[in-house]
Order: sequence, then structure tokens, then C-alpha cells
Amino acid sequence: MQDYQAVLEYIAEAVEPSFGKGKVADYIPALARVPASKFGMAVQLPTGESFSVGDAAEPFSIQSISKLFVLELAMSHFGDMVWTRVGKEPSGDRFNSMIKLEMEHGVPRNPFINPGALATLDLLMGLKGDTKHRIRNFLRYLAMNDAVDVDETVMMSELGHSDLNRAMAHLMKSYGNVEMDVDTLLETYCFQCAMTMSCKDLALAGLPLATGGYSSVHDGTILSAAQAKRINAVMLTCGMYDSVGSFAYRVGVPAKSGVGGGILAVIPGKMSVAVWSPELDQFGNSYVGTAALEMFTSMTHTGIF
Amino acid sequence: MQDYQAVLEYIAEAVEPSFGKGKVADYIPALARVPASKFGMAVQLPTGESFSVGDAAEPFSIQSISKLFVLELAMSHFGDMVWTRVGKEPSGDRFNSMIKLEMEHGVPRNPFINPGALATLDLLMGLKGDTKHRIRNFLRYLAMNDAVDVDETVMMSELGHSDLNRAMAHLMKSYGNVEMDVDTLLETYCFQCAMTMSCKDLALAGLPLATGGYSSVHDGTILSAAQAKRINAVMLTCGMYDSVGSFAYRVGVPAKSGVGGGILAVIPGKMSVAVWSPELDQFGNSYVGTAALEMFTSMTHTGIF
Amino acid sequence: MQDYQAVLEYIAEAVEPSFGKGKVADYIPALARVPASKFGMAVQLPTGESFSVGDAAEPFSIQSISKLFVLELAMSHFGDMVWTRVGKEPSGDRFNSMIKLEMEHGVPRNPFINPGALATLDLLMGLKGDTKHRIRNFLRYLAMNDAVDVDETVMMSELGHSDLNRAMAHLMKSYGNVEMDVDTLLETYCFQCAMTMSCKDLALAGLPLATGGYSSVHDGTILSAAQAKRINAVMLTCGMYDSVGSFAYRVGVPAKSGVGGGILAVIPGKMSVAVWSPELDQFGNSYVGTAALEMFTSMTHTGIF
Amino acid sequence: MQDYQAVLEYIAEAVEPSFGKGKVADYIPALARVPASKFGMAVQLPTGESFSVGDAAEPFSIQSISKLFVLELAMSHFGDMVWTRVGKEPSGDRFNSMIKLEMEHGVPRNPFINPGALATLDLLMGLKGDTKHRIRNFLRYLAMNDAVDVDETVMMSELGHSDLNRAMAHLMKSYGNVEMDVDTLLETYCFQCAMTMSCKDLALAGLPLATGGYSSVHDGTILSAAQAKRINAVMLTCGMYDSVGSFAYRVGVPAKSGVGGGILAVIPGKMSVAVWSPELDQFGNSYVGTAALEMFTSMTHTGIF
Repeated sequence: MQDYQAVLEYIAEAVEPSFGKGKVADYIPALARVPASKFGMAVQLPTGESFSVGDAAEPFSIQSISKLFVLELAMSHFGDMVWTRVGKEPSGDRFNSMIKLEMEHGVPRNPFINPGALATLDLLMGLKGDTKHRIRNFLRYLAMNDAVDVDETVMMSELGHSDLNRAMAHLMKSYGNVEMDVDTLLETYCFQCAMTMSCKDLALAGLPLATGGYSSVHDGTILSAAQAKRINAVMLTCGMYDSVGSFAYRVGVPAKSGVGGGILAVIPGKMSVAVWSPELDQFGNSYVGTAALEMFTSMTHTGIF
Repeated sequence: MQDYQAVLEYIAEAVEPSFGKGKVADYIPALARVPASKFGMAVQLPTGESFSVGDAAEPFSIQSISKLFVLELAMSHFGDMVWTRVGKEPSGDRFNSMIKLEMEHGVPRNPFINPGALATLDLLMGLKGDTKHRIRNFLRYLAMNDAVDVDETVMMSELGHSDLNRAMAHLMKSYGNVEMDVDTLLETYCFQCAMTMSCKDLALAGLPLATGGYSSVHDGTILSAAQAKRINAVMLTCGMYDSVGSFAYRVGVPAKSGVGGGILAVIPGKMSVAVWSPELDQFGNSYVGTAALEMFTSMTHTGIF
Repeated sequence: MQDYQAVLEYIAEAVEPSFGKGKVADYIPALARVPASKFGMAVQLPTGESFSVGDAAEPFSIQSISKLFVLELAMSHFGDMVWTRVGKEPSGDRFNSMIKLEMEHGVPRNPFINPGALATLDLLMGLKGDTKHRIRNFLRYLAMNDAVDVDETVMMSELGHSDLNRAMAHLMKSYGNVEMDVDTLLETYCFQCAMTMSCKDLALAGLPLATGGYSSVHDGTILSAAQAKRINAVMLTCGMYDSVGSFAYRVGVPAKSGVGGGILAVIPGKMSVAVWSPELDQFGNSYVGTAALEMFTSMTHTGIF
Repeated sequence: MQDYQAVLEYIAEAVEPSFGKGKVADYIPALARVPASKFGMAVQLPTGESFSVGDAAEPFSIQSISKLFVLELAMSHFGDMVWTRVGKEPSGDRFNSMIKLEMEHGVPRNPFINPGALATLDLLMGLKGDTKHRIRNFLRYLAMNDAVDVDETVMMSELGHSDLNRAMAHLMKSYGNVEMDVDTLLETYCFQCAMTMSCKDLALAGLPLATGGYSSVHDGTILSAAQAKRINAVMLTCGMYDSVGSFAYRVGVPAKSGVGGGILAVIPGKMSVAVWSPELDQFGNSYVGTAALEMFTSMTHTGIF
């Protein structure tokens, strides 16, 4: 048995020289205020054991990591119907380009670029009931933590800077690939992005993807084994914006990042790992977080390649 | 002196076999209801003389022809500042493509494609006062007809089908090239498109462009001579969607068309001509109207090539 | 009767402060060696009268102006079949972009962008006989000057820098829109671009386009009236790279430019005008030449808008 | 220990109903002549043990699988310098699109799309000596089979249908990203694609990628462990044309396919597997081969997700 606690503590020290090399997201003021020096990391095993270091208990804005959870919700309710609304192939473009969206007639390439996340959420909103409650409840269940909640300041700030996402939503609506009212869709989307979770929350929330959809810790089946496998494959090929190839090489496991500086990595069959450090690299992924995960899979020999 | 009345009457008969070859615009129900067999044509001379045939006194939806008048308004108030918000080159794309708009960072190629018309209108809306009143008053002045007004049914119908235009407006706003609230911008845009004018109104309204900006009929200077020349040049190179080259060859004069089936043609130094016939060709220009204008410039030797 | 000689002499003086503001083409060494200070201008009337100023008798590399003459040759032999191989609409792109070429399946937008010129030449090469001789003979006939010839140094230099044109030729060939061997096509293309003519030659060569295809000076019919009109329309909407709109406004007549610094302008019904000055603006058109033509059409009131 | 022989025999029977659902590549006649009903599969273990079924000993055209081996050669000689010539991210486009190549200034997205393979080969050709010999020798060494050779009929047939690849090579050359003469580059490229190998050859040749670059069977180190990991990551994210996401989900291991119907899959740490069946799906991957690999990783629990 590997001493994961020692690995995490080693990493927390080893990444120190890397701070200052990235840049905290500043496209909305609420995100820009987060201290650049934050660092937390957490590991969750299928046995229920967990390990953590640094600011791993401090909630932060999960941003695009929410796309992963909304995809899980959509797949659990709609199964493969999800793939009639969104593709499952890498986009080869910036995460918010409209060019390919127009060329492919309003069907986004995958659920992890912004238009794909909007289409997935739009599908989910077709269910009866309040989608915001549904998302919050799902995250609380996954994190086993009823304190998980939205940061309303971030949400309102994002709503006020959502023109590009609105443009994509209207373009998809013009192709019939958005059914909801765009204002409501955008508000719900900003809600999901503005949810805050800690590394511990995220690692626990990611566990079912590492264990074939069923988690004995949660004592519940979130997804079928095929659905969990599918999501892991889409994460590996599409989860890290325009650096999936580099991330696959350096870290070598499926992962989803957010501009809040969080990354949730799934190590199939073994564990889930979450890391948080707000400074981003040029592709929008956590600079220190990527380095930390690279050390982790290297030291624990858990990379899949 | 040419007998323009005889020319118009000859044309009205000669185009009869062409009906049924195009297709009335049906993207909004209110436009689809217009009878396909309508045909009117009007000629306005600088002397004040005018000639007309058929349904030339019947108002119809001017649609994109409004882009021409809004451009005139914007140029008269802001001069060359207009060209900081929109280009003056052909787009080589469908009139509503977002691809080039993204590649050129939110600055539309010209004021006659939809995003360019939106940027022009957005600039105009920066003026104090109600822009809808301003546009309606300007059209009434140009047409010398206080009955010129909006068709509210068409306007509301367009507002309900405006996702693509909204997408473009939000994309431009994300680049800082739209200042107004998008909802207000779109409502005003649908207002301008839903204005109704007859061929007689339009021919009179187009006269100042044929006479260097000053019209003795209106007894007023609408634009400087350089501005009138500029607008005519942009019309010839950009005014007929993706068939400017064909139209330049066949008809050979600057013109602006609308999906309501109207075309307003300006014959520099000589006259203005308006035609209306609702069936459109594959490019969105009036099928019969183009044929009628082709006959007109050919019979009167007024083509500029 | 206007005193064209005086106009030309006035212009030759007036443009002097404009030298040094553009940049001589340097993509091949042979072109970069031409003195930046050269300036010539020539006017040819249908009556046979001609006027000139400066270096108007000095041959220079006609480059893309050759596209106009090869189009005339192709239209005279193949008529409207030309338009099955190339479109007649503006491209809205740089003159050598491959993006649109791929999106439109190998059919170039018009005969004045590079791939369109290659497709036009490829069609012409389907005729029996040596195409290079045919082109040279046609230029000698149009210029009424048997000294018109190719500059072999320029030709070889261009052949050695033709990768982008080769890429376009092979892409079109993959779509079946090039029939000739690409090496032969490129050699012939570099031949046509490397032809040298003086402003006097060019003005004479352009005359038939101004006179409906028949020229009493040449005592011959080069094209039908419809074909001459068609070419003028394509020139006005596509002849000046990505500044057709600006050129149409400033100069207001159909024209074709080349990176050798020449521009041939056609004033329908009235005359043809050629100008040469090697420094180019950012779009690849002669900086001083454009200014000179703008003065000319303004002073002689020959702009068509 | 799993009974791999039994698994292969089970699969060979199970895929029978799938024949006839794909389409043999017909873009060159030499490939179109291969019988659609061929099927072979081979497994190579690091221990030296191997298993096979069907036509596993019959050589076929490896086509794009050669890109993998040429990448290995280039990385072994030039290390990370390879990545200055070609990216390592998915393209999100058809394997031979030029659009992205122009937008990204001649640097292909990854070594497995055609322009990327050309750039990689161009780099390799900078070495002293005959590149064709070098490639053949490398394949013979990897396959431990001196009978591995080129099919000259296929090679000549591909050379005669290489316009799109030539277009891409010239476009890259215009950006300075191809150094060799394009004719020589293309001939060498057609040579590598026309190499023939059997499933047994390929499985053996792929083994070092499954074993960290060193293979005890070959008794040699082909690549460093980091290089093998890098190539596996690029294969998983870019190796299957525009269906990497689907393949990652269904099969779940790094793989490279060719239009000859072969697929070479690498199961990191465990084994390599090759399959051959000429009928292709809509993305250009072997239809039956993909199904067979899906069964294999499912039955042996070797998928990485």
C-alpha cells in the first residue's frame, strides 16, 4: 500500500517554485480576487480512505468542472440521447469558438466546450422541476456534503459577462439545438459554473467515475459501467481545452479542469484526485495543479500510458 | 427624352413568364402571406418627374433595404466614424455567417450584411432620442409621405425568429463592438426591417443618392457628395448578398435588396428606380425584380459598365 | 474636350509627396530591385488619341494584370463555359487563401484571385498550340507592340517561389478543377505574370474593354459587348484584392492591379488608363498609382458613382 | 493467465455477421482489389509469446500505420525537436483538411494527420542516407522479419493520386515547414504508406510501445520510456482520424489505423494487438477491426478507462 499522504506532502513542497508562473483568471472580477498562492490536493480511494494536503478543505469556484457533473446527470436521465445533442470528439479549437459550431450546423463537438455544455444543460432542463436545485442536490450527494452551494457574487458577475455564451446559445437555438429560453439557460449555466466545492468534495464526487459508476462509499449507482467508461474517454480526449494531448502525455489520466484553478482527475479502477491552484497556463488549466497531478501519477505509477 | 412610362409598361408585360420561378420568403409567417404575383416598379427623376407601373403604390416590407437608410442616417451624424465599427468590403459569405465575424474579431465586413447593419444601428442608437422615431421620421422625409410606418405584425414575428441575429449581436458585444443592450438593439432592428414602403416611396427615398446627396425635389442635403458616392460604391460591391458580381454584370448599377422582394437601384447622376416582386432567387434577391431592372438598364442604356 | 495632357502633368506633380509611403514588393528578388521612385501614367481614347507622362514608355512586370488578359482570351474561346471553372463573386479573403477554396470544393470565387487565375489558365491550356505563345501574341496584338515580351529572370524567380500557388493548383486538381500537369500550369502562370508592358502598352491593351469589345484603333472585335461588360463588372467587384470597396469609392472605375505596381483602369464608354508606381499599400495595390487614379477620375468626372 | 488463443478464435467467429457493413478503400485501384472478407488478428506479449487467428500472416498495405513508425524514427533521432515541426493535439477536422493548416500557419496539429506525417517525414529526411532504406530497415527490425517490403504497384498508384498531399506539402513549404523537395518528399511518403506487413509483423513491431520503449523480445531500446508514453498519448487522442472519442470509449486503448484496413493497438504495460479487415467505416477505420478490438479489450479487461 502506497503512502498517499506522504506523496501529497512531498508534492505540496515540490510545487512551491512553480507559483507565479501562471495567471489567475481575471475575466470576471470575482474570480480575480482569489489569492494566487492557494494550493490544495485530495485523494479519494474506493475503500473510503482519503488523503489531503494544503487548502484541500477550502471551497472554490468549480467553473467548467461542473460540465462533468451536468453531463453525468444528463446521461443518467437520458442515456445515449445526449449524443443526439452534442458530439464526443475533440474540437481542435479554442473552447469557445463559434466557427466550428456554424460549420457543423449547431451541434457542438463535445460536452466540455462551452456550446456543448450549454446543449447538455438545455437537455437536462427539459426535465420537470428546478434544474438549479437538481444540480445543487446532485453535487451535495456526490460530495456527501450539504454545505455545497453556489457563490451568488460569482454567478451574477458571470451573468454580466456572458455575451459569448449567449451568442453560442442563440446560434444553436437558430439550428434548433437549444429548446429553453436563452436567458433561463444562461442563468442556470452561470449557476452551475459558480458552484463552490473543495478538493475533498471534488475527489469524493469523482469517485464513482473511477469505480464503474457504482460507489460503495456513496452506497449508490450513479451511472452504468458503460456510461462511466464513456465519460472517462470523453474527459481524456476533450477535458483539458486545447491541451488534451499534452495533458494526456504529462499526466496520463482522464481529467476535467476549470478556470477557477481546479482539476478533477479520475484514475480508472483506482481512485479520484482533485487539485486546486488558481494560476492558469495559457490554455486555461491550472499551472501548478497540472504539475502536481503529473508528479502524482508519476510517483504512484498510475498513468494509463 | 426617353419615354420611361412606356419602358415600365413594356417591362411589366415582359416579366410575366418569370413568375413562379422564385420563392416567397417564408422564414417568418407574416412575410409568407404576401401574394407571389405582386409586381410594381417606379422611376424617380431629379427633376421631380416620376413614372410607375403595377402595384407601385402598394406598401410592402422593406426588410434589408432599411440597412441603406440607417447607414445614411449614421453617416450623416457620425461621418467616417461609421467605418471604425464596420468595414466596407464584400464578405464573400452568406449574409448571416458568423465565421468571418469571429475571425475578424467582431468587426463586420460591411454595413449590408446583418452583423454590419446591427453595428451601424448600434452606433446610431448612441444618439439622444428615440431611434425608432428617428428612423421612421427619416423614411417619411425621404419618401415625402407621412403614412410610411411599421408593420407591427411583421416586427413581432421577426423578433420571435431572431436567434441568429441575437447570436451575432452578442458575439460583437463580446468584442466590444456593440454598446447597446442586445434586446433593445434587436427590437429596433426588427422595427427598421418591418417598415413598409411602396415602390414610389422607395424611388423617391433613393433619389438623393443619385444626385450627390442633395435633392432639389426634397429641397435638402441628406449627405455630402463624397458620402453619397461612398454609399453607392458599397452598394455595388456589397448590396446584393452573395450575388453582387452577377447583379453588377446583369443590371450594372448600385442597388440594395430586401427579402420582402423589393430592390432599390441608384443610377448615379440620373435617377433612382424601385421594383417589387416577392418571389426570391436562391440568393434572397427578388427574381422578377432583378430581371425587370436588367431590362430597364439595358433598354435605357443606364448600366455603368 | 478635356485637356488630358494637362491633367496627367498636374497629377505627376501632385503625387510626389506620396512616394515613400508604400513598399516595393519583395517576395521575389527580381521585383525588389525596381526603383521605388518610378511613375508613369497613360490615357488611351477610343479615337486613337493618347496621352502620357513620366515613365509611361518603360516596360514593367505586369504580374496580376495578366489575369485580366488571360480571362479575355478564355472568354473569347470558351464563352460562359469559363464560369463552370471559376465563380464571379468577391472572395472576402486575401488573394491567396486556401480556406474558402477548400470550403467551396475547389471552385475559386473569381478569376482575379490566384486560384481563379490558375483555373482560367488551365482551361485556356486545353486549346491546341503553345499557350505561352498565345498569351504573348495576344498581348502584342492588344498593345500593338511586337516588343512586348517576358522577363525571364522574373519568371524563373517566381517559379522558385511558387509553393503557395502550387498548393492551390494541387488542391484544385484533387477536386478535378485543374486538368493540366501542375508543373506545366505553374510555368505558364509564371510566364504570364512575368510579361512586361509599359503604361502606354497597357492603356492601349485595355481599350476594347472600354468600348464594348470592339476597338476601331485595333480595327478588331476582341469580345462581345456582353463579355466586355461582364469583365468590367468582375473587375470592379473583384479586381483590387481585398480593397475593392475602398477602390470603388475612391477611384470609382473597374480596374486590375498587379504587385509590380501597375494598375489598368477601364472607364466604360470613355477610355482606358494605366498607371505604374512600384510602391504598394498593405493590400498589394500601387500606393501612388491608386492616388493618381483617384485624382484622375475626380478631375475628369469619370467615376461611375 | 488468460487463454488469448481462445479469445482470438471466439472473436474471429463473432465478427462474421459484421462483414459487408463497411466499404473497402477505393481511392486507388490497387487497394480496391483486396478481398473484403479478409480477417486476421495477432497478439504479442512482452514475454515473446504470440497468438494469432485467420489471415494474420498475410501482408497487407499498412498505409497510415506507417505514420506511427516514422514518428518513432523521428523521435529517436531528433527527440522533442519533432514538436517544433508538428503539434500533439487533436485536429477536430478530417485527416486531410487544409483549413486548419492555413489558420495555424503551416504547423500541422499532430503527426497522424497527413500534413503532420509529411512534416515528420521531412524532418527525418534531413538525416544523411536513404530515408526509404532507413524506414524499410526499421520496419524489418521491429517486425523481426526481413521479408517486410514495399508494394511498388500500390506506391506508384498512390503517387498518381497525391494531389491533396502535394497541396499540403507545398502549403507547408510556403510557411517554411517543409525543407525537402516536394516531389522527393511525396515519393518517400508514398513509399512508407505502401509498405506491407502482416498482423503478426505489426503486433511485434508495436511491442516496444507497450513496454516503455525497451523490448526484451527485440533485445533493444527503441525509445525512452517518456517517448513511448508520449506516442501512446498522441495515439489515443489523435490516432483514429475523426473518431478518436468513439474509439477511446469502445476500445479504450491507444491505436493507429490505416485505410488498408489494419489497426495496431498498444495496451500499455501488457501487450500489442494488430487486426486486419479491409472494409472501412465512414471515418476510414476498419469496421470489423474496430469491433474485434472492442471485443478483445472487453473480454480481457484491458481497456484503460
